[in-house]
Amino acid sequence: MIRYKKLGYVVLSVTDLNKSVDFYENIVGMEFVERVLDAAYLRCSGDHHNLILEQGEEPGLKRVAFELEKADQFQAVFDHLKKQGVNPVELSAEECQNLAQGRTLRFKDPYLGVTYEFYVQIMQMGTPFVPKKARITRLLHVVYETNKFDELFDFFTTVLNFNISDIQGRETGWAWLRAAGTPFHHNFALTKGKENKLNHLAYQAQRVDDVGIQVNRLKDNNVPILFGPGKHHPSGSIFLYFADPDGLTIEYSQGMEEFPEENPREPRRLEPTMHTLDEWGGRPKPGWGKVGKLIKEDLEKVNQ
Amino acid sequence: MIRYKKLGYVVLSVTDLNKSVDFYENIVGMEFVERVLDAAYLRCSGDHHNLILEQGEEPGLKRVAFELEKADQFQAVFDHLKKQGVNPVELSAEECQNLAQGRTLRFKDPYLGVTYEFYVQIMQMGTPFVPKKARITRLLHVVYETNKFDELFDFFTTVLNFNISDIQGRETGWAWLRAAGTPFHHNFALTKGKENKLNHLAYQAQRVDDVGIQVNRLKDNNVPILFGPGKHHPSGSIFLYFADPDGLTIEYSQGMEEFPEENPREPRRLEPTMHTLDEWGGRPKPGWGKVGKLIKEDLEKVNQ
Amino acid sequence: MIRYKKLGYVVLSVTDLNKSVDFYENIVGMEFVERVLDAAYLRCSGDHHNLILEQGEEPGLKRVAFELEKADQFQAVFDHLKKQGVNPVELSAEECQNLAQGRTLRFKDPYLGVTYEFYVQIMQMGTPFVPKKARITRLLHVVYETNKFDELFDFFTTVLNFNISDIQGRETGWAWLRAAGTPFHHNFALTKGKENKLNHLAYQAQRVDDVGIQVNRLKDNNVPILFGPGKHHPSGSIFLYFADPDGLTIEYSQGMEEFPEENPREPRRLEPTMHTLDEWGGRPKPGWGKVGKLIKEDLEKVNQ
Amino acid sequence: MIRYKKLGYVVLSVTDLNKSVDFYENIVGMEFVERVLDAAYLRCSGDHHNLILEQGEEPGLKRVAFELEKADQFQAVFDHLKKQGVNPVELSAEECQNLAQGRTLRFKDPYLGVTYEFYVQIMQMGTPFVPKKARITRLLHVVYETNKFDELFDFFTTVLNFNISDIQGRETGWAWLRAAGTPFHHNFALTKGKENKLNHLAYQAQRVDDVGIQVNRLKDNNVPILFGPGKHHPSGSIFLYFADPDGLTIEYSQGMEEFPEENPREPRRLEPTMHTLDEWGGRPKPGWGKVGKLIKEDLEKVNQ
Repeated sequence: MIRYKKLGYVVLSVTDLNKSVDFYENIVGMEFVERVLDAAYLRCSGDHHNLILEQGEEPGLKRVAFELEKADQFQAVFDHLKKQGVNPVELSAEECQNLAQGRTLRFKDPYLGVTYEFYVQIMQMGTPFVPKKARITRLLHVVYETNKFDELFDFFTTVLNFNISDIQGRETGWAWLRAAGTPFHHNFALTKGKENKLNHLAYQAQRVDDVGIQVNRLKDNNVPILFGPGKHHPSGSIFLYFADPDGLTIEYSQGMEEFPEENPREPRRLEPTMHTLDEWGGRPKPGWGKVGKLIKEDLEKVNQ
Repeated sequence: MIRYKKLGYVVLSVTDLNKSVDFYENIVGMEFVERVLDAAYLRCSGDHHNLILEQGEEPGLKRVAFELEKADQFQAVFDHLKKQGVNPVELSAEECQNLAQGRTLRFKDPYLGVTYEFYVQIMQMGTPFVPKKARITRLLHVVYETNKFDELFDFFTTVLNFNISDIQGRETGWAWLRAAGTPFHHNFALTKGKENKLNHLAYQAQRVDDVGIQVNRLKDNNVPILFGPGKHHPSGSIFLYFADPDGLTIEYSQGMEEFPEENPREPRRLEPTMHTLDEWGGRPKPGWGKVGKLIKEDLEKVNQ
Repeated sequence: MIRYKKLGYVVLSVTDLNKSVDFYENIVGMEFVERVLDAAYLRCSGDHHNLILEQGEEPGLKRVAFELEKADQFQAVFDHLKKQGVNPVELSAEECQNLAQGRTLRFKDPYLGVTYEFYVQIMQMGTPFVPKKARITRLLHVVYETNKFDELFDFFTTVLNFNISDIQGRETGWAWLRAAGTPFHHNFALTKGKENKLNHLAYQAQRVDDVGIQVNRLKDNNVPILFGPGKHHPSGSIFLYFADPDGLTIEYSQGMEEFPEENPREPRRLEPTMHTLDEWGGRPKPGWGKVGKLIKEDLEKVNQ
Repeated sequence: MIRYKKLGYVVLSVTDLNKSVDFYENIVGMEFVERVLDAAYLRCSGDHHNLILEQGEEPGLKRVAFELEKADQFQAVFDHLKKQGVNPVELSAEECQNLAQGRTLRFKDPYLGVTYEFYVQIMQMGTPFVPKKARITRLLHVVYETNKFDELFDFFTTVLNFNISDIQGRETGWAWLRAAGTPFHHNFALTKGKENKLNHLAYQAQRVDDVGIQVNRLKDNNVPILFGPGKHHPSGSIFLYFADPDGLTIEYSQGMEEFPEENPREPRRLEPTMHTLDEWGGRPKPGWGKVGKLIKEDLEKVNQ
């Protein structure tokens, strides 16, 4: 069974790389690490990167990468995915070195064609991550809107060994999942919709203060607030959503429920009300979760 | 030495009594108790009243009432005030009964002429106070702007036995005071200004959620938010200011520092910066603390 | 009996104010607060200042200031000093405001004529002190060399209520004293010598690492190391001495013994060996403790 | 699987045996045990020897010896090595007695030809080891520079059952290994280089004080300090490097990370920066790690 250390990083396609690097550094609060050609690496932990921004034609999500729990688990995970028919490819030593990672594999989910990456031993930077004004402490989760909800839900919970934290609706319309071995209420979530797209990307904020400070930082920098501050009922987290320069929805999430490894609580089926979305009674702005194509990478190129 | 149980209630003059009763009941979250002629009584505790609204010509503060720590202290406090030249008057038994209070005295401060009331044994209601949507737990403090700062500061700390929690500025321009025997960072505060007026009135909110809920309740009801949510540096409280129907500034305050009775920390002299006012970086709207006359009552009428 | 909160700040006379401000900010690691005419204020805590640098003719110590434990103790301390024949003068309200302090008194010791200041309620800055590369956490102590050892020792321990932490020698030649109410092994020390001068000034470093980092910072900036790293036997602290631009001796001190308020250990009479000075076997450079006049201020000017 | 008790001893070739014995006794702080012809035995534990110095033509490393966890494991280890094609030879009873050891085997690594020895039951001395001025508590590790990095890394981690504590670089250029069963961050480490040679040899110092004392002992005896005191990021140890009479690099290492037997942390891939080498910001002198041939012993002679 696959076990994970954490949601490691995502690759976003952005239409103005310089502008986006400035935003993720100065508004989101990450640290710029390096730029290689049309890709910029940023971090919000000791890792070499927790976000890669790539110059592209349109804004969207290109890859979601999880760090495996232990390095010596890599081959077994590779074999497991192969057996499941997922067709993983392992990156060459040179490709891994370019990413400052140890052994790394990639595959696509069979329904949306999004690229996932599992890796071990990402390079730890010599100096610790020091958050700017607002204290962000990790990349927390990725959420899709999808019309292949049931298929993806099944793929993540069976093939990829994600645990169910909560679901919502009579006919399940939301699922909050956590990769086996990780404690947070969700590092991946799905909501049923007409389209297939990125709903949002979330960073963990350390204190309620960091959410409060961010509200003013967004206002002072004319960054659109899309939803919140509010409180999500499923995870108990205080949230704040805002738009990146391309309109991608970014969340600050504070105080999310953490599950113990042993005897976690049962997943609940929650009522689909506005109160579930925001216990404090707010409503999202129209731009919330609206921008973000799920971009299909050409996996064949990986080993060229 | 005078010892207090709490800030008990205030009397506000409002220009449209019905409208204000509705506001303090449905927006602030108090419970309407009764209406006697042109006065309405509301509560946010087991007490018969923590707010009296009176129909008047202009909006303002008519009286500030503190409950004494013990009933048997009443006479000594009366004598002390008399000795200090404050000229207290004791209310008649009938007047006390009309107020649903035990022994009650009133006096004016010698500088602004505001009426203060000290009382014991206010009637406890048969049913507990059940907060509405947002959980308010008490009337917390009253703040004045005044051009008689030094005189009032001296009057409260020496004659009335208020403790200093914090002051601000090289030449002291803010003082946060707590009535001896009460734990909260301030139930009375002063800020130096050109005018003499009510700056604001505050209610304690129980949880951060109650502040978050209130933001949406205010927006949904088109109540102007004047400042916040933010965080006050002196008391460490999360705040939210909004306007009542007359424009009086009302605060929700959550998580204020509490002082122990034994060995409380020393008062601090704080730097007068925007960060001291709001650690989260916000700025008040122009209407913040702008409305609220300090109305001089005719004390002679008290005993008529 | 006088009780203290801490050694608050010292005033140094320096021959090139700009150069010294740069040194205390970038080499010692304090934060520059403001400059008023020929005086610069720096801090290493929430206080408005923990060091005042004044442009002068020669390098030296102009004033040593202690913060009293409680504000309401001020008058009693003033009266006590008066009764002891020390002739304290209280600063005017304007002088206190210029210093961003509450009530403040000054006096001279009767033997060397050094000015001491006792104050309450120094202004707390709106933003916390954030140490630079090396983490200094407080101004820790002042040490004199003096040929009036016995007289000063007596003055500090009887009139000023300093506790003895340790002494050294058959005929006492070193005394380490702590102001009553403060925990650190010494915030004031005396060593018997031919001259009367400042021996050194010390800052507390948080971790052994901060001493190690400072060694390299000094070397990289061509700052003379005068002694250490080493370990003082009396206080158990790891030390590092270096020269400021005028040659004044500055110490980083890490891990000093702290005394409990109740039942502190007895003072010890220590053997005067090199091992007492440095358990690690080092020896000071010739410049150690050599520069630093004790400058007599004209107290009459205080109230002009 | 081979399990170890510790890094037991090394054999160094030195060009002036008397001078080196004096150095390892009086500067490093070991205890001289005995001299047999051109070999001197020294110890820093209850063992008969933790260092053997042999008179030679040039300075270098002749042998690295590990003590196995249990005596009854000896034959299985011998068989395992044979099966792996390593060609171990077992010493005769007389040879073992000369070494004051129980059963002992030797082999060469297939890439550099360095001789390794695994032994059990080394003679325990009648009197405990009493450290001299500085408290050294064990021989801690050996580090090579090598142009056969990948091959050696693989040999140690697979054939010899060493665990990986940390690696460094995109293309791995440093590896810190610990013999299975031993807790310290590394008793063997490799760094990729152009040559094959000994980088350094390390002793554990008990306290920070022992590093501080050693600095002065080195200075007082004109022993070149090659690097430090500083702090290694990978192991968190405080280090001090100095030169033996032949220029071999010797380290004092204090406070190294220890791994639990159960659930040790995952190895990290560290960024190759100067900060990883020294968190305190120091830089090694040119002589650091420069002297020390890896001398190939003639294993055939072993059994003669």
